[in-house]
Amino acid sequence: MNKVLSQAANKTAEKTGQVVLIIACSETDSNMYYASQFLAPDPFIFLRAKGYSYLLMSDLEVDRARAQAEVDVVLSYSEYEKSLKKKGMAHPEIIEVVHALLKEKKIKEVVVPPNFPLEYGDGLRNRGIALKIKPEPFFEERLIKSREEISAIRKTQAAVEEVMDEAVETLRQTESKGGKLYLKGTVLTSEFMRHQMHYSLMEKGYVAQHTIIACGADACDPHNVGSGPLRANKPIIFDIFPRSNQSRYYADMSRTVVKGKASAGVKKLYNTVLEGQNLGIALVRDGAHGKMIHEEITAFFEKQGYHTGKQDGRMQGFFHGTGHGLGLDIHELPRISKSDWVLQKGEVVTVEPGLYYPNIGAVRIEDMVLVEEKGCQNLTTYPKELEIN
Amino acid sequence: MNKVLSQAANKTAEKTGQVVLIIACSETDSNMYYASQFLAPDPFIFLRAKGYSYLLMSDLEVDRARAQAEVDVVLSYSEYEKSLKKKGMAHPEIIEVVHALLKEKKIKEVVVPPNFPLEYGDGLRNRGIALKIKPEPFFEERLIKSREEISAIRKTQAAVEEVMDEAVETLRQTESKGGKLYLKGTVLTSEFMRHQMHYSLMEKGYVAQHTIIACGADACDPHNVGSGPLRANKPIIFDIFPRSNQSRYYADMSRTVVKGKASAGVKKLYNTVLEGQNLGIALVRDGAHGKMIHEEITAFFEKQGYHTGKQDGRMQGFFHGTGHGLGLDIHELPRISKSDWVLQKGEVVTVEPGLYYPNIGAVRIEDMVLVEEKGCQNLTTYPKELEIN
Repeated sequence: MNKVLSQAANKTAEKTGQVVLIIACSETDSNMYYASQFLAPDPFIFLRAKGYSYLLMSDLEVDRARAQAEVDVVLSYSEYEKSLKKKGMAHPEIIEVVHALLKEKKIKEVVVPPNFPLEYGDGLRNRGIALKIKPEPFFEERLIKSREEISAIRKTQAAVEEVMDEAVETLRQTESKGGKLYLKGTVLTSEFMRHQMHYSLMEKGYVAQHTIIACGADACDPHNVGSGPLRANKPIIFDIFPRSNQSRYYADMSRTVVKGKASAGVKKLYNTVLEGQNLGIALVRDGAHGKMIHEEITAFFEKQGYHTGKQDGRMQGFFHGTGHGLGLDIHELPRISKSDWVLQKGEVVTVEPGLYYPNIGAVRIEDMVLVEEKGCQNLTTYPKELEIN
Repeated sequence: MNKVLSQAANKTAEKTGQVVLIIACSETDSNMYYASQFLAPDPFIFLRAKGYSYLLMSDLEVDRARAQAEVDVVLSYSEYEKSLKKKGMAHPEIIEVVHALLKEKKIKEVVVPPNFPLEYGDGLRNRGIALKIKPEPFFEERLIKSREEISAIRKTQAAVEEVMDEAVETLRQTESKGGKLYLKGTVLTSEFMRHQMHYSLMEKGYVAQHTIIACGADACDPHNVGSGPLRANKPIIFDIFPRSNQSRYYADMSRTVVKGKASAGVKKLYNTVLEGQNLGIALVRDGAHGKMIHEEITAFFEKQGYHTGKQDGRMQGFFHGTGHGLGLDIHELPRISKSDWVLQKGEVVTVEPGLYYPNIGAVRIEDMVLVEEKGCQNLTTYPKELEIN
């Protein structure tokens, strides 16, 4: 059982009275994990109907699911399979087994998530089951974080800030020769720092992948993880977003730093992004429109002379969203971007504007905030200082 | 570019002349990664039509995709969006953008994978596009491993064998007190050993999750990762299956060991599983039926008096498949199990029978083999020794 979740998903389904069906692998599908609180490497079946939640599990997983999953009943897939074979079906496929379960429960309509596999969707419809796709947020409760969920996100964030601090300490210890940074005589690379950071996060109980430590041209491409030597006097973007092994909740933070002296151009860029971020954070509150916040920041950047668009054959300026929700997924609803989402009290969202110009440099600053009735609470406590000496 | 893959996916699509459409996130969907050779944390769009492969990417990813993806053309999502807005569509959704692209290319029928999201499937059908679901293996070439893929799997396996060796060395250094194993005076736990192993794999460039180091009752549940003190004279199952950060190819191996003396019952169980595995490996060859191999092993176990089924309220005996394919996914086709798959030359599959009895103990032994014309080649070189002293 995941102590952070405590049956939230099942409670809501009960309220609505809708029959919910999910067929997915909980290691990669967070709705399935949220519904079952059971981690397994292969797809399995979740059903919520008439006040009860069910899992239909293979022989391999049935006993572990009975011990670990947070559902009312764990059923044996192979027993349904056997009973279909008895009825003359030589090789009952998964959709026939699911159909047998629905038939047994007298269910003729199910609500499925938007990523429900088309193969199974067609299979059920062909057997007379009506499917209603419920768009994301499939489980609305995943948007609004409980006290336990906020605490889990805060814990992950504490680890993020510790490793960011370790990285800054490492940069402090470097020396510059010919523009490159050296640590105890060895050139310091993105790869080495990422490795150290992932090690340290693993030690603390967190899994990080694709952590961005990008300098120079790499940093101008917001999802380039960075490679090669880190340079003195050039902005380095850190974007750190590990997941807790225990709670499975993410946190997400970006900082931009320069070891040595930042150019006047980079300083101005940094202050503009910071001002844009502050503007955004000041606008986050219950009922605020994500689109409006995003447009305010974009307009502010334009007013400061920082134009967004294709220049010299590539995207420049501020060409990603301002922020995203996070929790069991690193990117989940709501969004603060061109799409319109109204923020609600209890959501946790990032505010992470950035400006990217190959001829000046790249800056992104990202905090994670909790939406409140009249504003927001910043869950990120890490300082924002451009230059490190 | 992933040097292991080198455009295999696109070559085949070209041969068949079918239009292929995938909408997925390549970090979790291996067909998308195989098709694009581009890693991104959010869903994107892949199209293969009339001799060309396309990606449709957000502003955030478009330039990185142009630099890294192995496709012919990377298109800008936002440009299609803009053009729809000009035509009067206020908020064009993803499916409208995809439809606009298909219309532009005069495409009326697409082939999609079985896990294509139902929401998008319905969206395209409502706009007059015919969808043909191609069951897995969606890309047949993923079944048959190229020389480069086999080499990538071998490399991952080398790392697996190194960390298994480190674990055995650790066990050798332990002492038993009151049945528990102690390393330098501290009780040795599953958690500690898993941590050490994940560290060591990370150091070598591999990511491991859910590695099984399970002793006693834990081991009787095949997917229980194990927790708490490891015990002397009791079987410990190791199941190690990391992924390479570089090639993204998995390897998979299980060994069962006893630190100290195994009971007569465990020894007999071990030798029976080993004999069952040898029997299975001897049957693997081009054209062999997975189901037949699985049934031979099951029958052998029954003949030796090891019955499979529910006993004392839980599954006991041999209640999982004999083996599975692996590559970019840890579990992929083909299967050696109750379902019927005919093995083909060039496939890499595991052979991993196990027997699980709470009153005796648990044993699983797993090798990874390459299917050949007249037999198979064992890609696992790690010895099989039950007792460690």
